[in-house]
Amino acid sequence: MADSSTTPRRRGAERTRELLTVTLDLATEVGYRGLSVEAIAGRAGVGKHTIYRRWSSIAELLLDALSVVWVSDLDYRTSGPVRADLREQFVRSSQALSTPPIGPVYRAVIAEAQADPALRATLHERFLATVEQRTLDRITRAQREGQLVADVNLEFAAEVLCGTLYYRLLLTSRPVDEKAIDGLLDMFMAAYGVGEARS
Amino acid sequence: MADSSTTPRRRGAERTRELLTVTLDLATEVGYRGLSVEAIAGRAGVGKHTIYRRWSSIAELLLDALSVVWVSDLDYRTSGPVRADLREQFVRSSQALSTPPIGPVYRAVIAEAQADPALRATLHERFLATVEQRTLDRITRAQREGQLVADVNLEFAAEVLCGTLYYRLLLTSRPVDEKAIDGLLDMFMAAYGVGEARS
Repeated sequence: MADSSTTPRRRGAERTRELLTVTLDLATEVGYRGLSVEAIAGRAGVGKHTIYRRWSSIAELLLDALSVVWVSDLDYRTSGPVRADLREQFVRSSQALSTPPIGPVYRAVIAEAQADPALRATLHERFLATVEQRTLDRITRAQREGQLVADVNLEFAAEVLCGTLYYRLLLTSRPVDEKAIDGLLDMFMAAYGVGEARS
Repeated sequence: MADSSTTPRRRGAERTRELLTVTLDLATEVGYRGLSVEAIAGRAGVGKHTIYRRWSSIAELLLDALSVVWVSDLDYRTSGPVRADLREQFVRSSQALSTPPIGPVYRAVIAEAQADPALRATLHERFLATVEQRTLDRITRAQREGQLVADVNLEFAAEVLCGTLYYRLLLTSRPVDEKAIDGLLDMFMAAYGVGEARS
């Protein structure tokens, strides 16, 4: 918890961060279905109203928690050629998605969302839409720099980059590994890269 | 049931087909979790051993049932240019995947498979591997005919074609519609089509 010397704004941000961390820890221990506002509030040492003031559901709270881990660990670099920067982020993402704390909890939320369209909307709005937008920003930058072909709307390409490997994760026993990532990037660069070799 | 004038082999095939139809009907009514070998056998008017002789689990039986619907309705054409044949099949698949009987049952199996790696393996082996192989066959044929660039391994491209739109289905509120299908085919043809316009 924040100590008394910090400002109210800072204390608020720290409390939010702590609640998200507690939520993720608890989700890892008890699973998505075992989460409750009571348990999260109890472990964080706050009243339930502190949680209800900020989040209207457990799902929103958990997805914000996943976003915080994701966003702090998994930003795109803009230092290299676009392919290298995409690859670097995809390798880190795929590792995060297949290991605790994100992996099992995230998979459980996705499963839960199949019977709950509102949760599916929340999953996309509070988490995946951000991932897609950052991907679109990164490849649009590359397009401006002349690394990708001009006059192509890259919005759907961003969705393909973010979404394709979920097929492996959710519907196969294949690993989301560097070979798969290279396969996806081969196709993306063959489609939109400038100066890519083609027959 | 088969009448007495048919051969044993034909009666076997008809009984299998009827069991698969009953399974799909019942799954549509009671959901994946509500299915039991007892209920399927009862409705089909056969003993449970008839089912156990052929399938080792409800999941395998259901996935074979989905395959039968899929395979009979959703084969690739080989009559047109590859893009048109892929598009025609994807439009039909996406409609089948989002409407009964396949839609809700299939989504429930996918959800169930997230907590059950063996079911995930069965889902891929008994259903999606076939879809991928047919897609690979169709685009390999197009490659042989000179519609797609030579000297490219299309195996991963087949996976991308089959898998990408599951992201929309499972993780967003966006429709798997013709615009999305065209977006995916734009990218595929930009990457591998012969004579596609590129900057």
